[in-house]
Amino acid sequence: MPAARNRLDPALLDPAVLPTSDLADLLAAVCDVESVSGHETALADAVEAVLRDQPHLEVHRDGDAVVARTHLGLDRRVVLAGHLDTVPLTDPPNLPTRCEGTGDDRVLWGRGTVDMKAGLTVFLALAVELGRPGSEPTTDVTYVFYDHEEVEATKSGLGRLVRNSPELLAGDFAVLGEPTSAGIEGGCNGTIRVDVRTHGRAAHSARAWRGENAIHAAAPVLARLAAYEPAEVEVDGLVYREGVNAVGIAGGIAGNVIPDACTVTVNYRFAPSRSEADAEAHLRELFDGFEVVVTDSSPGARPGLDDPLAAQFAAAVLARTGGAPRPKYGWTDVARFAALGVPAVNFAPGDPLLAHADDERVPVRELALCRDALRSWLCGA
Amino acid sequence: MPAARNRLDPALLDPAVLPTSDLADLLAAVCDVESVSGHETALADAVEAVLRDQPHLEVHRDGDAVVARTHLGLDRRVVLAGHLDTVPLTDPPNLPTRCEGTGDDRVLWGRGTVDMKAGLTVFLALAVELGRPGSEPTTDVTYVFYDHEEVEATKSGLGRLVRNSPELLAGDFAVLGEPTSAGIEGGCNGTIRVDVRTHGRAAHSARAWRGENAIHAAAPVLARLAAYEPAEVEVDGLVYREGVNAVGIAGGIAGNVIPDACTVTVNYRFAPSRSEADAEAHLRELFDGFEVVVTDSSPGARPGLDDPLAAQFAAAVLARTGGAPRPKYGWTDVARFAALGVPAVNFAPGDPLLAHADDERVPVRELALCRDALRSWLCGA
Repeated sequence: MPAARNRLDPALLDPAVLPTSDLADLLAAVCDVESVSGHETALADAVEAVLRDQPHLEVHRDGDAVVARTHLGLDRRVVLAGHLDTVPLTDPPNLPTRCEGTGDDRVLWGRGTVDMKAGLTVFLALAVELGRPGSEPTTDVTYVFYDHEEVEATKSGLGRLVRNSPELLAGDFAVLGEPTSAGIEGGCNGTIRVDVRTHGRAAHSARAWRGENAIHAAAPVLARLAAYEPAEVEVDGLVYREGVNAVGIAGGIAGNVIPDACTVTVNYRFAPSRSEADAEAHLRELFDGFEVVVTDSSPGARPGLDDPLAAQFAAAVLARTGGAPRPKYGWTDVARFAALGVPAVNFAPGDPLLAHADDERVPVRELALCRDALRSWLCGA
Repeated sequence: MPAARNRLDPALLDPAVLPTSDLADLLAAVCDVESVSGHETALADAVEAVLRDQPHLEVHRDGDAVVARTHLGLDRRVVLAGHLDTVPLTDPPNLPTRCEGTGDDRVLWGRGTVDMKAGLTVFLALAVELGRPGSEPTTDVTYVFYDHEEVEATKSGLGRLVRNSPELLAGDFAVLGEPTSAGIEGGCNGTIRVDVRTHGRAAHSARAWRGENAIHAAAPVLARLAAYEPAEVEVDGLVYREGVNAVGIAGGIAGNVIPDACTVTVNYRFAPSRSEADAEAHLRELFDGFEVVVTDSSPGARPGLDDPLAAQFAAAVLARTGGAPRPKYGWTDVARFAALGVPAVNFAPGDPLLAHADDERVPVRELALCRDALRSWLCGA
């Protein structure tokens, strides 16, 4: 076991106070162990140390990912999963965290408070609490804390666990700690990127008639994008908004040369009822007559709210927060669980629109709200 | 006087053979003194040494520009001007030059053979020849050889002479040695570059409806460019083809961000009957409703063929080559002479479409043809 470089103060994890604490101090401590993608080791060490202190958990470490599981012999298993890393700090740095306000109106500011150390903190508190006498869950629980979510997919710590030890991720249902303002956000849209390329013939711009302008040839591509009407697609009772957008355009060699190539990079966010192949076919039809090259593609995930465990979860959350399930628009790791056959939803404190924002901040009251909703569901009524 | 690093073999400049030589060996020698922009000193030194050897010339040096003038007391003065520099060599290098073919069909290959050491060589030969007994011109002649033509306008050696010693450039008519296949190309189009900018609002591409796509907003800009019908404009009897072209386009921040800005760089080549202000107004009208920022602008030059000296020149060339004057499309330094009040045309060996080309090459016979036409005109019938 690697030495912990930043232990979390055991007083914050005291099982005597944890179940009724508002978790603000614990969240501040977790955030203040800076863990920008690629620098997760200190936080992974601290989390591992906490989990190894719990006699009811079996702990595994893989790189900077930590997995802890109860083995209560129950017939169902729920996975609570979240990433340890954050996007880079602002300049000047938005760490250490700072708390504003008083009482129930306190707000904790700083990198990671929303995406997604709030969810992580809730899961960590439940990992310590559930399994002790008087707090027995009615399902077994697997806690997954992983690295490299905020960077290219090939580095994903969750992807690495899928490759190395998929059995550690097995379960009947998963909750991912991406911010949802303590509501349930189900599934996620898929995403595909293509390059739409036009070609021409270079010439000196003083004799343009000897060339063919590839940027002018892209006019219909932009016209089709500008005229595109994105669909709204209902999947398992949730309505997903799609979108087809140019996210980049590039063409031109020099200020006196007719360009012989232009590339429009297009990102299509597609409802989880469509496959990646469907999405590609849709783009090829939209850009009929143009060269279309797929550069990146990830499937969506259906919300899975028809699953009985999911329905119980939704009821438990609804009872605490009053919030009905909504669709998740951004791609999240629920898609990786869906690919493993584990239905998954996003549920955690924090406004998703503040993820990665310079003014990232979370209302403290959402922490206990989420913990209490999860405990209520996991301990079954 | 700086030491010559690459003297031109005096045998090539022997006044006894020069007037009837085909100039191929002299052109090869001039080309083989490599003079990519910024490295003109060796060639400037060699040219200066040749000119200082001629008792009928008064020589001035300014940086790597050399000016030589006859002072025969004649009532008219003609300027023969050409740049010393070339664009970079190819890889592998297209120097030293090589000669293919035999007799009148010889072709000299290599960097600078077209743009524009062929014209330079003709002017250099005339500088040695004209003014000697038996070869007296009927007008005084100024020879201008200058640096830094193939790079940004601010570095232009001719521009520097205009600032430092405009009196050295005075004359009644100028011939610029840009390649014209031994025909007369009059005046030149003007050129203006603008950035047409669109603006939007950034957002995550998973929630595109929260943003405004600046690349989509550029669709009408490309549509107007694609539909644009360039004009043909007659000026002083020559027809100039215009053109409005995108030469660059850029937009996009990242693959998952709705772009908040897009810039289309547009180059308008306009007939010399239009002013720069006319050209700008034309573009502002074409892109009405969009932000238009002028980034670069140079006026054109009327062909000036209504000037009596020009008419005599055209007749002398016509008698030798059979070619009628044509418009010059690319911007050349005739515009600088026009701005000084000196009508100017382009006239020299070499196909202008091979300027800067990897396979740059000149038919040797055009060298003597151009020399003989110029001599015939300058020595008056």
